[in-house]
Amino acid sequence: MANLLRTCIALAMLTFGLQASAAANDDLEERLGDARSWVTAAGSYSGQRFSTLNEITADNVHALRPAWSFSTGVLRGHEGAPLVVGGVMYVHTPFPNIVYALDLDHEGRILWKYEPRQDASVAAVMCCDTVSRGLGYGDGKILLAQADATLVALDAKTGAVVWTAKNGDPKLGETMTGSPLVVKDKVIAGIGGGEYGVLGRLTAYRLSDGKPLWSAASAGPDASMLIDPQKTTELGRPVGENSSLKSWEGDAWKIGGGPTWGWITYDPKLDLIYYGTGNPGTWNPGQRPGDNKWTDTIFARSPETGVAKWVYQMTPHDEWDFDGINEMILADIPVRGAMRQALVHFDRNGFGYTLDRASGELLVAEKFDPSVNWASGIDLATGKPQRAPAFSPEAGGEDTATEGICPSALGAKNQQPAAFSPQTRLFYVPTNHTCMGYEPFHVSYTAGQPYVGATLTMTPAPGDANLGNFIAWDAASGKIVWSVPERFSVWSGALATAGGVVFYGTLEGYLKAVDARTGRELYRFKTPSGIVGNPITYEHDGRQYVAVLSGVGGWAGIGLAAGLSSPDDGSGAVGLNLALSNYTALGGVVTVFALP
Amino acid sequence: MANLLRTCIALAMLTFGLQASAAANDDLEERLGDARSWVTAAGSYSGQRFSTLNEITADNVHALRPAWSFSTGVLRGHEGAPLVVGGVMYVHTPFPNIVYALDLDHEGRILWKYEPRQDASVAAVMCCDTVSRGLGYGDGKILLAQADATLVALDAKTGAVVWTAKNGDPKLGETMTGSPLVVKDKVIAGIGGGEYGVLGRLTAYRLSDGKPLWSAASAGPDASMLIDPQKTTELGRPVGENSSLKSWEGDAWKIGGGPTWGWITYDPKLDLIYYGTGNPGTWNPGQRPGDNKWTDTIFARSPETGVAKWVYQMTPHDEWDFDGINEMILADIPVRGAMRQALVHFDRNGFGYTLDRASGELLVAEKFDPSVNWASGIDLATGKPQRAPAFSPEAGGEDTATEGICPSALGAKNQQPAAFSPQTRLFYVPTNHTCMGYEPFHVSYTAGQPYVGATLTMTPAPGDANLGNFIAWDAASGKIVWSVPERFSVWSGALATAGGVVFYGTLEGYLKAVDARTGRELYRFKTPSGIVGNPITYEHDGRQYVAVLSGVGGWAGIGLAAGLSSPDDGSGAVGLNLALSNYTALGGVVTVFALP
Repeated sequence: MANLLRTCIALAMLTFGLQASAAANDDLEERLGDARSWVTAAGSYSGQRFSTLNEITADNVHALRPAWSFSTGVLRGHEGAPLVVGGVMYVHTPFPNIVYALDLDHEGRILWKYEPRQDASVAAVMCCDTVSRGLGYGDGKILLAQADATLVALDAKTGAVVWTAKNGDPKLGETMTGSPLVVKDKVIAGIGGGEYGVLGRLTAYRLSDGKPLWSAASAGPDASMLIDPQKTTELGRPVGENSSLKSWEGDAWKIGGGPTWGWITYDPKLDLIYYGTGNPGTWNPGQRPGDNKWTDTIFARSPETGVAKWVYQMTPHDEWDFDGINEMILADIPVRGAMRQALVHFDRNGFGYTLDRASGELLVAEKFDPSVNWASGIDLATGKPQRAPAFSPEAGGEDTATEGICPSALGAKNQQPAAFSPQTRLFYVPTNHTCMGYEPFHVSYTAGQPYVGATLTMTPAPGDANLGNFIAWDAASGKIVWSVPERFSVWSGALATAGGVVFYGTLEGYLKAVDARTGRELYRFKTPSGIVGNPITYEHDGRQYVAVLSGVGGWAGIGLAAGLSSPDDGSGAVGLNLALSNYTALGGVVTVFALP
Repeated sequence: MANLLRTCIALAMLTFGLQASAAANDDLEERLGDARSWVTAAGSYSGQRFSTLNEITADNVHALRPAWSFSTGVLRGHEGAPLVVGGVMYVHTPFPNIVYALDLDHEGRILWKYEPRQDASVAAVMCCDTVSRGLGYGDGKILLAQADATLVALDAKTGAVVWTAKNGDPKLGETMTGSPLVVKDKVIAGIGGGEYGVLGRLTAYRLSDGKPLWSAASAGPDASMLIDPQKTTELGRPVGENSSLKSWEGDAWKIGGGPTWGWITYDPKLDLIYYGTGNPGTWNPGQRPGDNKWTDTIFARSPETGVAKWVYQMTPHDEWDFDGINEMILADIPVRGAMRQALVHFDRNGFGYTLDRASGELLVAEKFDPSVNWASGIDLATGKPQRAPAFSPEAGGEDTATEGICPSALGAKNQQPAAFSPQTRLFYVPTNHTCMGYEPFHVSYTAGQPYVGATLTMTPAPGDANLGNFIAWDAASGKIVWSVPERFSVWSGALATAGGVVFYGTLEGYLKAVDARTGRELYRFKTPSGIVGNPITYEHDGRQYVAVLSGVGGWAGIGLAAGLSSPDDGSGAVGLNLALSNYTALGGVVTVFALP
């Protein structure tokens, strides 16, 4: 049986035209080693969002000032970050997913602009604002994940379309918001649509021509998941045959979610890619008995074959929309006296996980927001959360709201990526500090229609006025080292630098710089709009720059972005941050900073 | 007859409810005397756009840097400028004409926001982008001229609507884009729609409750124009009875244009307001024989009664769309050895006029762009342009293009207001440097439909690559003192300061500071989008700030703003500046600058 399965996997890979040998992408790898560039969404394969550039330091960052700025001409939420490759900044926008190539020699003169033609109806099936989390780069190509699930390779020099690939069908609610990652000769891309009953999958395309190579589903038969029941492990143990199928009733897995709209990281030495799968569908847990594997799961896969090395499901049978797609940060840190090849992940469910990224061993799992109450802890041996029955919506029953669950469905952290500094060995985590009432209701699946099955009411965490914190986290001990309260969710990514400075943005629109050791604020600048993008740094003509997209929106700002509600109505799944309409208005702008 | 006429005027004024005595607006007058504020579109009644603030100087302006920024959430062209009153910045937007009150104590936190409900069809009848040129202020009220020709008074503290007044009918093509001016107890507002056969008029409303007080048409019977045939003069001579009616065939004046969408200035000592009337309709001169008075005319009127003190028609029987609405700058300067109460005006037609603003005497009229060729000069005695027959579209005939006319219909200057420094006695003028082919065609009038009657093809001025210049002008001699070439039309206003620095913006998006004496560039910053707004300066908490709206658009940027054409198509009435899509994209942002 196991041999048969492996044969099936091999056949599936052949179906996708996998080549035995993969040509190295020397261009990308060389640029990844050059701190002057920023060539992946996280600036590196590791997802550390750390730069060795150190012209800007804790001592001089107070003098930082905008050097130039660029309006994208698009109003909705600007998540993600530009890329910087060879003196050119590549800026993406939310739907309609315009790409600008800006000349850094001339303060952002437009070298080329690419504006896809997409059916406007696509924007309507994007659950949480029409965001895009950025571009990929490799071998002279800019990779654009369009909202309509078309993956496009553009010539980085001219903007000409090199190839397009259909990665999904927006008529089924399949959309793309994540940033594709180039690994060797492949582009790896996920899919969104967890609120539309989309079955998640990660797909690899050939970088040269867009030919699909392999695709690995988030649930279903082992063959379609590229799971080897004997070799794929969870916490060191083989997952066994049909590990996913056994955890669903009947065919429920086919509309079972596990989307893959988050970040992808890569360890070249272990030759493994890492990503998380999203929540199971529907949000009504009573409609999908079982553990719903492998939703809300960390995956380690071979980029060559797609086969899973290990998995770890963080929230079995998710009752809270604890979408597990947040980034996996790869960092070597000492844990309990031994240096470990760690993977650190801050999950929507409020736990910060430290695993051995080679074996998938669970080393640490602790709350990174003190308000988290849906589980008292995580059993390191079994990996299971110790659930609090009082905060189980399923136990409360359909059409009954379970109140006071922390965190809310926004998660203690959402897509906003954390950073890691090898200097301090601390992780810098933008967090949400919110709770919710959760009322499941029965829902029927109709292809392409919302398949949600719960209503939410979000509230501030008890006793606190701040809706977010920016924290420093010790992933070895699972402890918060310092925490900076923020008025709103911190929906921006973090950036750590060798200058001892950590950058992040706020929903009011401030780019802030804090001391990496203490969290003390060293600098702030009010950019044109709320920041849901991720600061980056690069060097041009011998100077260090910091750049960030502002443009309020995303799930945290969807009320404002889509005009859904008044600032007085702080409730509903559209988020708690509606009061931010007292602080900022829409509009996408890149602001680029430097020292005088 | 003259007595009868005066009686008619008096009756007309009574019809509008004019009160004999006007209460002074102490609040506004006090703030006008305080350089820390910026309480009218031009910062003063004089239109000088000069500030006595001098913290920022030619020596230190190189260190200027953005202090904070604010996105308006609106994409189209952002002409005009914010007001600063009592620690609050009032920011307007193009259609839908949102008003934000921003707290200067908190880097632009939103105190209130007002968003009118207007029929979206209004935007379609705005000829040259959906711009607004800013707000008025007086007696604790913010005055908003909505696109749909509704004048709104908002409580400056709360944003609550105090009153509204209907100033026109957008179904007839009547729209408002100009900034209303408060003079004593009145708000004075113009109307746009010259390309729709709208007959222009200036109207005064009572500041307290919006009651109409007087209205003065740009053409027609003396009574409706508030012209006194004996007392109203042109170049010192009474205009005589029916001066307008005699200059049109039949009822052509009723759809004869002369809109009043430009700036209004005021001399409190002479108690006269000044403004210009726009082009006659249609653009096909053959369809409207006669001088078409009083289109393309400078008006001096009493703000109390509206009665015209003097007029001067710059372009009789306009064949080129030389809309005369540009600002009248009031400055006392020596001319030929004698100090004069001058009015200086840079007209679309390319001539810079210096008049005595008390008497309307024409003192100087010279070309402020060397390419101007439609007339060789202006006869100071008669005030008439000495026309060049080769550049007369009417002589060329209908359906025939007359080529090489300079300036183009954009004018050597358009709405972008110039500045004057009493220190240098120079005027700082943002100019266009473009020419055109002009082909008249027959057009029929239908209410509410475009009534244009010509097609244009714009070209760069012969031999030059620059489409604009920023110049210093000596209005006493009528000579350019220095000229800075700019790649595109300079569609931003100018600001002169006592620090010896002059500011302006470019269509690429640069805010530039130049030395007031030499034009040498001292500072530039690339704001998020092209600048068609006007820089202002104010003081808050003891620091001098400079602020400017960016957000490309207006007639100069309409191709980009409305997506009318490709960058390669540099022709047509949509402007020559289409190549600016290589430099900037849409998006309204206020950027506020200060020294470190």
